[in-house]
Amino acid sequence: MALYEIVPDDPGRVRQAIVRAAVVQAVIINGGTGVAPRDNTYEAVCGLLDKRLDGFGELFRMLSYGQIGSAAMASRAVGGVVGTTLVFALPGSTAGCRLGTEKLIAPELGHLAGLLAGGGHGSR
Amino acid sequence: MALYEIVPDDPGRVRQAIVRAAVVQAVIINGGTGVAPRDNTYEAVCGLLDKRLDGFGELFRMLSYGQIGSAAMASRAVGGVVGTTLVFALPGSTAGCRLGTEKLIAPELGHLAGLLAGGGHGSR
Amino acid sequence: MALYEIVPDDPGRVRQAIVRAAVVQAVIINGGTGVAPRDNTYEAVCGLLDKRLDGFGELFRMLSYGQIGSAAMASRAVGGVVGTTLVFALPGSTAGCRLGTEKLIAPELGHLAGLLAGGGHGSR
Repeated sequence: MALYEIVPDDPGRVRQAIVRAAVVQAVIINGGTGVAPRDNTYEAVCGLLDKRLDGFGELFRMLSYGQIGSAAMASRAVGGVVGTTLVFALPGSTAGCRLGTEKLIAPELGHLAGLLAGGGHGSR
Repeated sequence: MALYEIVPDDPGRVRQAIVRAAVVQAVIINGGTGVAPRDNTYEAVCGLLDKRLDGFGELFRMLSYGQIGSAAMASRAVGGVVGTTLVFALPGSTAGCRLGTEKLIAPELGHLAGLLAGGGHGSR
Repeated sequence: MALYEIVPDDPGRVRQAIVRAAVVQAVIINGGTGVAPRDNTYEAVCGLLDKRLDGFGELFRMLSYGQIGSAAMASRAVGGVVGTTLVFALPGSTAGCRLGTEKLIAPELGHLAGLLAGGGHGSR
């Protein structure tokens, strides 16, 4: 892990932290993905993305639905690419982080980072 | 139920009706979520949302796929938050309304409304 | 099939080709839906859509997850409507094209095209 930073629930601060961290392969954000007034991670991330990866949030919620049912709807997990850096925003809950990291991010990180570096072709 | 209103398939009228109704906890819109020329609910809602809740439309279509297969693709159900009011747009069909209301909105309404009121933290 | 055209991985050229083809009922685009630097189909399509059909990409990735697991996340398949023309962007892989065409586009094309032509009502 290259960097670890805790920032307040403020979209500007979250955005600045992503930009600072965007020298690495991937940024994983935890928390701030709900619908409470202070949950602005989704907006902060969406406003920065060069390429949106709809599948990350979708498949996270699909898998989450299998674990927690309709409550999965409340998560605004979102992913995409800023420059050549992958950005994934996961819920702050331990179960949510584990699900997203183990089932989606960890298995695909090497593949996606390789595609972003220009190697091979992202066929699917 | 606080308000009940029928408005024509016009994005401006749909938008005005949402704003009028946004003094309540949740607005449920029925119909206008397809792809026919007059189906503008999706655009009207998206243009108003402060916070988009991707999971509502996604999980609705995932569940709908289990009932009606590929036809679920045609539904542009969408949800989110305007101010502190939840907004859910469901198809006009009885089966679609029942599915979305019973499986997603009803079980989560109290939880989501509580988060919007600032109580607790939307961890997942 | 009315038209068949191969265009370079350039968002402007992809966009022009969609507009040229938008005299037909449906445009199916293959490839350029990944996250590699040259994969710009998603952006080109999103920038043109009058009506976004979130369900196409969602259900494609849901079905794809059943076949290839977490790698489904890398696909930025997207669909929607430009004028009265359906536009679907699928991955370039044979398996991805087959999945999207056989399970989603082919079964719904007639129904969706009928709705766009103003016939019947897209109830769900």
